[in-house]
Amino acid sequence: MLTDMHVAVIGGDARQLEIIRKLSEHDAQLSLVGFDQLDDGFVGANKRTFDTIDPSTVDAIILPVSGMNDNGEIESIFSGEKTVLTEDWLKETKDNTVVYTGISNERLKIMVNESGRKLVELMERDDVAIYNSVPTAEGTVMMVIQNTEITIHNANVIVTGLGRVGMTVARTFQNLGANVELIANEPNLKARAFEMGMKCSTVNDLFSRAESADVVINTIPAPIISPKVLQRMPLHALVVDLASKPGGTDFRYAEKRGIKALLAPGLPGIVAPKTAGEIIASVLSNLLQEQWDVERGGK
Amino acid sequence: MLTDMHVAVIGGDARQLEIIRKLSEHDAQLSLVGFDQLDDGFVGANKRTFDTIDPSTVDAIILPVSGMNDNGEIESIFSGEKTVLTEDWLKETKDNTVVYTGISNERLKIMVNESGRKLVELMERDDVAIYNSVPTAEGTVMMVIQNTEITIHNANVIVTGLGRVGMTVARTFQNLGANVELIANEPNLKARAFEMGMKCSTVNDLFSRAESADVVINTIPAPIISPKVLQRMPLHALVVDLASKPGGTDFRYAEKRGIKALLAPGLPGIVAPKTAGEIIASVLSNLLQEQWDVERGGK
Amino acid sequence: MLTDMHVAVIGGDARQLEIIRKLSEHDAQLSLVGFDQLDDGFVGANKRTFDTIDPSTVDAIILPVSGMNDNGEIESIFSGEKTVLTEDWLKETKDNTVVYTGISNERLKIMVNESGRKLVELMERDDVAIYNSVPTAEGTVMMVIQNTEITIHNANVIVTGLGRVGMTVARTFQNLGANVELIANEPNLKARAFEMGMKCSTVNDLFSRAESADVVINTIPAPIISPKVLQRMPLHALVVDLASKPGGTDFRYAEKRGIKALLAPGLPGIVAPKTAGEIIASVLSNLLQEQWDVERGGK
Amino acid sequence: MLTDMHVAVIGGDARQLEIIRKLSEHDAQLSLVGFDQLDDGFVGANKRTFDTIDPSTVDAIILPVSGMNDNGEIESIFSGEKTVLTEDWLKETKDNTVVYTGISNERLKIMVNESGRKLVELMERDDVAIYNSVPTAEGTVMMVIQNTEITIHNANVIVTGLGRVGMTVARTFQNLGANVELIANEPNLKARAFEMGMKCSTVNDLFSRAESADVVINTIPAPIISPKVLQRMPLHALVVDLASKPGGTDFRYAEKRGIKALLAPGLPGIVAPKTAGEIIASVLSNLLQEQWDVERGGK
Ligand SMILES: NC(=O)c1ccc[n+]([C@@H]2O[C@H](COP(=O)([O-])OP(=O)(O)OC[C@H]3O[C@@H](n4cnc5c(N)ncnc54)[C@H](OP(=O)(O)O)[C@@H]3O)[C@@H](O)[C@H]2O)c1
Ligand SMILES: NC(=O)c1ccc[n+]([C@@H]2O[C@H](COP(=O)([O-])OP(=O)(O)OC[C@H]3O[C@@H](n4cnc5c(N)ncnc54)[C@H](OP(=O)(O)O)[C@@H]3O)[C@@H](O)[C@H]2O)c1
Ligand SMILES: NC(=O)c1ccc[n+]([C@@H]2O[C@H](COP(=O)([O-])OP(=O)(O)OC[C@H]3O[C@@H](n4cnc5c(N)ncnc54)[C@H](OP(=O)(O)O)[C@@H]3O)[C@@H](O)[C@H]2O)c1
Ligand SMILES: NC(=O)c1ccc[n+]([C@@H]2O[C@H](COP(=O)([O-])OP(=O)(O)OC[C@H]3O[C@@H](n4cnc5c(N)ncnc54)[C@H](OP(=O)(O)O)[C@@H]3O)[C@@H](O)[C@H]2O)c1
Repeated sequence: MLTDMHVAVIGGDARQLEIIRKLSEHDAQLSLVGFDQLDDGFVGANKRTFDTIDPSTVDAIILPVSGMNDNGEIESIFSGEKTVLTEDWLKETKDNTVVYTGISNERLKIMVNESGRKLVELMERDDVAIYNSVPTAEGTVMMVIQNTEITIHNANVIVTGLGRVGMTVARTFQNLGANVELIANEPNLKARAFEMGMKCSTVNDLFSRAESADVVINTIPAPIISPKVLQRMPLHALVVDLASKPGGTDFRYAEKRGIKALLAPGLPGIVAPKTAGEIIASVLSNLLQEQWDVERGGK
Repeated sequence: MLTDMHVAVIGGDARQLEIIRKLSEHDAQLSLVGFDQLDDGFVGANKRTFDTIDPSTVDAIILPVSGMNDNGEIESIFSGEKTVLTEDWLKETKDNTVVYTGISNERLKIMVNESGRKLVELMERDDVAIYNSVPTAEGTVMMVIQNTEITIHNANVIVTGLGRVGMTVARTFQNLGANVELIANEPNLKARAFEMGMKCSTVNDLFSRAESADVVINTIPAPIISPKVLQRMPLHALVVDLASKPGGTDFRYAEKRGIKALLAPGLPGIVAPKTAGEIIASVLSNLLQEQWDVERGGK
Repeated sequence: MLTDMHVAVIGGDARQLEIIRKLSEHDAQLSLVGFDQLDDGFVGANKRTFDTIDPSTVDAIILPVSGMNDNGEIESIFSGEKTVLTEDWLKETKDNTVVYTGISNERLKIMVNESGRKLVELMERDDVAIYNSVPTAEGTVMMVIQNTEITIHNANVIVTGLGRVGMTVARTFQNLGANVELIANEPNLKARAFEMGMKCSTVNDLFSRAESADVVINTIPAPIISPKVLQRMPLHALVVDLASKPGGTDFRYAEKRGIKALLAPGLPGIVAPKTAGEIIASVLSNLLQEQWDVERGGK
Repeated sequence: MLTDMHVAVIGGDARQLEIIRKLSEHDAQLSLVGFDQLDDGFVGANKRTFDTIDPSTVDAIILPVSGMNDNGEIESIFSGEKTVLTEDWLKETKDNTVVYTGISNERLKIMVNESGRKLVELMERDDVAIYNSVPTAEGTVMMVIQNTEITIHNANVIVTGLGRVGMTVARTFQNLGANVELIANEPNLKARAFEMGMKCSTVNDLFSRAESADVVINTIPAPIISPKVLQRMPLHALVVDLASKPGGTDFRYAEKRGIKALLAPGLPGIVAPKTAGEIIASVLSNLLQEQWDVERGGK
């Protein structure tokens, strides 16, 4: 339980509601900033502005998945106003106040650092990345069904990268009956692929493997799906690029050759916003509990 | 090989092209009726009208998946003209000419019967139904991803019926990580469900099982998803009804209660037209081969 | 509940204890014949001999899985005495007394028939066969691991027959990572095999498919694994024959050629006696319940 | 190809034959020491003693999986003589000669080090450990089937540790229909377990989770299966301890409590010696190739 812990939730989208719901259940005391248009009520949660919160009582600050933009603004779909977190306000918080955000940028890092506070980037965590890989894989499934004329079952699907997302995507497509071939370089990944019953080739061989591919799903944030690779693909093949912007595909060349290639960022929030919110809420409430146990244990 | 076999292909949609391609590969002699706007050429295939075909040379007639409508017309997306197959023409074919159609109606049955010819309804066949269950399941996956805010993984999914479609749909959702519960009455189906690692309840218990369902997928062509069942479902639950029209759901009541319920006919042709065409092409070419072997074996 | 139902349990092995336990839980009144050396006590169960039971009070008679031998004797591992069920005694039971047995022989069939009673052969039931297919498959897995020098994973495994046992065995080996190829003739089974991601050939092609097999598992009760087939197998290949005696393998020829071939009957009772007992106990208690409901409903 | 590479293979068991076969295929020049009783011949391989080999021509030395014992002896099932590798002989080899062994001990490490040569311990490699996890898992399956009265299907199986072996074992038992629960502490492993559809608890909760376990499989090389845990297990439960000697189980207490607990070392060599040999042969031939490419590339 988070009884008496004061948490400021600042801006966000539908996913933030799952966080508020969860923390409310855990009996935290919640100040919601940038939620003026929110209709739902949650026990222990009050809509506030920065002015009406005493920063010296705040134990934790929760920013949205998108964090803060380069102008220092925090987006909120529940408010028409701009929400801006200032260094001055942050400095007034407790010494051990922690700032939790989805992703981060230079501005946020500097501000939190100069305020002497701790910053936790949730999306960087392995566990969050693995939990999120599930809705990411399902979003990929949806896109492939929508954008091909064949079934995934019995299709030749190449998945590049066997990291946190690649592992889940590969297994998901294998479970749907696709002939999955992996692209990974490390010997231990090749061994794991073999154990999972999948073929595995190196990045250098991708261009030749692409020849018989119906679908190529990229999770490697590097220019892997190069013209050399695209040139060998059959024209009916589909590329779904999951790697963070700008992806790993030469989209210009793909278009020129007439191969459909789609960059697909942010799938969890699109295809399963509730699950995506629950993932963050669950990890966050564990982290807050640990923080709270440390602080209260020290009392 | 179907060398010298004369096959008349009459109307259809994209799926028919897979059939023409396959039969062309097997060296059949093809007369295409209702394909005047088709651009592609196939070896051994000629565009014709009924007038320019000598019926007494025709060994097999292939109608589209949709068969013939109640006015005796055969739909074709490759022609602006109406294509009408007449009893008179049919009677002029050989005694052992076979008419192959996807589905059938009274009018077609009577006409073929009175002409003394044999009618084969491909969609009635167990093998075709099982092959088609794969794109049907994938279409269902797509609809569920599109219409829920949660992942299929870890969702509670009820599948009613463990027939040709139900078996595939259940396995597909299980493979995606859903907690699948089946609804089937026969003891052997309950045993098979157990072996597959799924719970199984009877139709009579559906209403109580529905209480914890996130998704209900119906394959039983009977009014199973009744108001009594819908009333117990959580409001966020989604119903996807695969059973042939009018489905097994009380859609009126579902709407009244605010539960999203979707009738989803014809998924294979929608989500995987090429695979759907290949399925028919493959079964059909086997059937034609058998027919041809019998006829030529007798010579 | 089976309150007041009088059930005579006659002989058997460890599996019978699961039945007694289950029926005792369901409050049946149990007379145990041929259990003089049994130590455990069960509520509502009394050790008896045929002489000390009033047959006119008996509602159901339960014979062991093995039924009755050709001399009319019923085996029991819990007694040093012979247990013999006589037609005279049987005729004294109620008109609607039912005799439940695992398997049956001519002698038992005739005796029950002439007594005017009903005989239920549990092992003939589809559901029992499917439940039992699970321990059968696990026993097969054990035998293959014990008798090969390679892993099941990545091995070429042929499974003949896609009936109640074949389906489970095929899936089990596939799930362990084997390349499973099925042998079945019917088009619907070929379609189901395809949907399950397995290759499928006809019985006529078995001999050529056998060439690359590491393991052949037979479930077809017909002489399928003929010299012609065995001759094509690699010498390291293993045959496990699950079909009822005498199996479907030419064991003489296999030995001559130096191919290890094992007939493996009765696996459930060997590798999982407790589960095997629970399967029968569960189906039997349902059947007794139905019988009891009918009889008591009529009162 | 390893043309002209001189490899000395010193002692071993059946697995060594797979290595010799593979290297012979790759055209290496092989000197076999401790193989005097070997009947098979391999192209390019000659039986030798240390005396008849010119060490200055040797590019690589291959010791068996067991390496060298504390007396400096190398075991060989193909010889009645003791095979002893001396530091003096080793010092006469080329500067870049590499010694490959399965496992290693202090004596071997010191000897190779003092000779200025490089030592590669194959069993330490991630890829070898993952490939070996497959026969290890199958051996575990065999032991569980042999030592329980129930099926793995539907049994409650706890797997401790989600490392290279635990991952494979857990998946294998899940694929056989067991209800697998994992024991792992790290958040990323918990997330991966969730994605794989398994429950996951921490080591601290093992004792309470053990209450409903039918089987506990340990892969953690630490005293995890303590009296506290064993005390909570049902008496019919089985412990299979895969962790390297002395395992993680208090075997004394298990015996006292009447719980069957088995230490199961070296499963790959026992249940699948051919596969186990191929694993090492395959990784080894890649490593030799890399070594050879470097050396020859430099010429
Ligand atoms: N589209 C979406 O909705 C969505 C959702 C989640 C994540 N993502 C994105 O998906 C990508 C993968 O995420 P992740 O969590 O799976 O990351 P990850 O665990 O770091 O995995 C990345 C994989 O790519 C490989 N890789 C990286 N650079 C490479 C290179 N130059 N050449 C060859 N292989 C290389 C890595 O191999 P090594 O480990 O050997 O380097 C690893 O296997 C990221 O860009 C992430 O932002 C997108
Ligand atoms: N939406 C699409 O794209 C699509 C694609 C293919 C098929 N379909 C439709 O899906 C439905 C199922 O097709 P299928 O091939 O799976 O048929 P099927 O093999 O005949 O299976 C139907 C199942 O429903 C059960 N059932 C039928 N009537 C019942 C009743 N009154 N009460 C309880 N159970 C009942 C059957 O059980 P018993 O065997 O015990 O009767 C069987 O398990 C059909 O309506 C078909 O037209 C739709
Ligand atoms: N060893 C054990 O521990 C154990 C345990 C359980 C069962 N069994 C035995 O295993 C065997 C299979 O049992 P089951 O329950 O799976 O039986 P099943 O459901 O009847 O299946 C038998 C399969 O064999 C096929 N078949 C039968 N005769 C054939 C023939 N002459 N040519 C080609 N295919 C043929 C059947 O195809 P169609 O349907 O097309 O005829 C069917 O696919 C039986 O002999 C049974 O006694 C052994
Ligand atoms: N019986 C056989 O035939 C056979 C075959 C192969 C291997 N093995 C043995 O099996 C064992 C596992 O091998 P592996 O390759 O899977 O090793 P691994 O990859 O290192 O995995 C070991 C696992 O145990 C966990 N662990 C280690 N110490 C722990 C502790 N004190 N408390 C909690 N968790 C702990 C590790 O977690 P962290 O990563 O968080 O530390 C990791 O998940 C080894 O002892 C190996 O020798 C036996």
